[in-house]
Amino acid sequence: MRAEAAPSFLWTESIPAAGERLTLGAEDAHYLARVCRARAGEQVTLTDGHGVRARALLVEIGRRPLAEVLEVERLEPGRGALLLCGAPERGRADWMVEKLAELGVSTLQPVHCERAPWSPAEVRLARWRRLAVAALRQSLGCFLLEVRAPIRLDDALAGLPAGGSRYLAEPAGSVAGSLSAPVLGTVFGLVGPAPGLAEGERAVASAAGFQPIALSGNRLRTETAALAWASWWSGGFVSAASK
Amino acid sequence: MRAEAAPSFLWTESIPAAGERLTLGAEDAHYLARVCRARAGEQVTLTDGHGVRARALLVEIGRRPLAEVLEVERLEPGRGALLLCGAPERGRADWMVEKLAELGVSTLQPVHCERAPWSPAEVRLARWRRLAVAALRQSLGCFLLEVRAPIRLDDALAGLPAGGSRYLAEPAGSVAGSLSAPVLGTVFGLVGPAPGLAEGERAVASAAGFQPIALSGNRLRTETAALAWASWWSGGFVSAASK
Repeated sequence: MRAEAAPSFLWTESIPAAGERLTLGAEDAHYLARVCRARAGEQVTLTDGHGVRARALLVEIGRRPLAEVLEVERLEPGRGALLLCGAPERGRADWMVEKLAELGVSTLQPVHCERAPWSPAEVRLARWRRLAVAALRQSLGCFLLEVRAPIRLDDALAGLPAGGSRYLAEPAGSVAGSLSAPVLGTVFGLVGPAPGLAEGERAVASAAGFQPIALSGNRLRTETAALAWASWWSGGFVSAASK
Repeated sequence: MRAEAAPSFLWTESIPAAGERLTLGAEDAHYLARVCRARAGEQVTLTDGHGVRARALLVEIGRRPLAEVLEVERLEPGRGALLLCGAPERGRADWMVEKLAELGVSTLQPVHCERAPWSPAEVRLARWRRLAVAALRQSLGCFLLEVRAPIRLDDALAGLPAGGSRYLAEPAGSVAGSLSAPVLGTVFGLVGPAPGLAEGERAVASAAGFQPIALSGNRLRTETAALAWASWWSGGFVSAASK
């Protein structure tokens, strides 16, 4: 049939009740036509990125596709991951955002660190939001990565909700393979900026309950450590088969 | 001192015996001066990317730095990872190579698959080699990622050495978090191309002993699956502390 076309899976800001119709945007029109090769009369899946997923019927395609919602369900997140991340080297944040979104990370909180604040030129929240939406569509996920504006590490640590397992990417830490990623609840991660965390920052993180985790025997760049941490967390999910 | 300078860690094609001198290239000169801010009289670490590591003294710097080898040691690889990888979408291979190298993967064998051969324009072996060397330097590793020219999946499978654990990235597989990456020996991985493996290819891989591993609850792009697999493997190392 359409073996090489992508399944029709779309993100939309909000999803109306079953029986109602919604008009899709220009970007969705392009995605449906070019990537999914969808036709009127076919079904698509919609998500709002906050756990609502719907089956819908494509009533019209073209420049402003029209879809009728057939069935709506709400998924519980079950588990989540919030990553505090220092600034990587220049030009490396975009794909980090994309990959964190694909791996299902819930929240990316960029943090200004002593040795490396995020440069305003590197912070592109609108672009990151688009990358996160594209990654959600690609990964068939129903929970959109939220990318926040950078704040100071101290403030980020002080503002974390209580509880949850907390991990600091650190070559001298416990080997990742020996630690099981929590199956439920929210896990917090902290990855230092390209020049590393300052001693005082490590101490504050440690006091906040972050335990060191070694993600590789090699030294990793900031964005690679972020991805390795997200992979470690993402690979610890509970499969539908084992539920 | 030089808190934000990188440690002086260099790759060189071959390393002479202790007491001998070697002249470093123009790229190393730049790296030493700009990134490491090294000076004559300081020590550097050299590796040949095949497990030989040396301490050396910088006798001269400038455009053609001169180093005197002080001590040479040979490290055993201990564990290795060979990844067979289908073609990702356009433009995504370069950073995949960089990240696999940082994570310490031994060999990347690009494979032509039924639904997606590697496009000649995307295969840039000389560039990938440079990226692998830069990543080695960055990650302070002594084993350089070998990137091979693409071959057919069938041929790649037929040419694998006997034994070793073998994993196929596959959403319906065993959850990665429930599988321990082998601590010793070579592990083989297989990641399909962007449009996925054909049924026949899965069957051939299965017959070759590849067991499915689910790296995430989300669907991952080719390069993301490759990275998640490499992270899973890399995070299963034996730390020096526990040896």
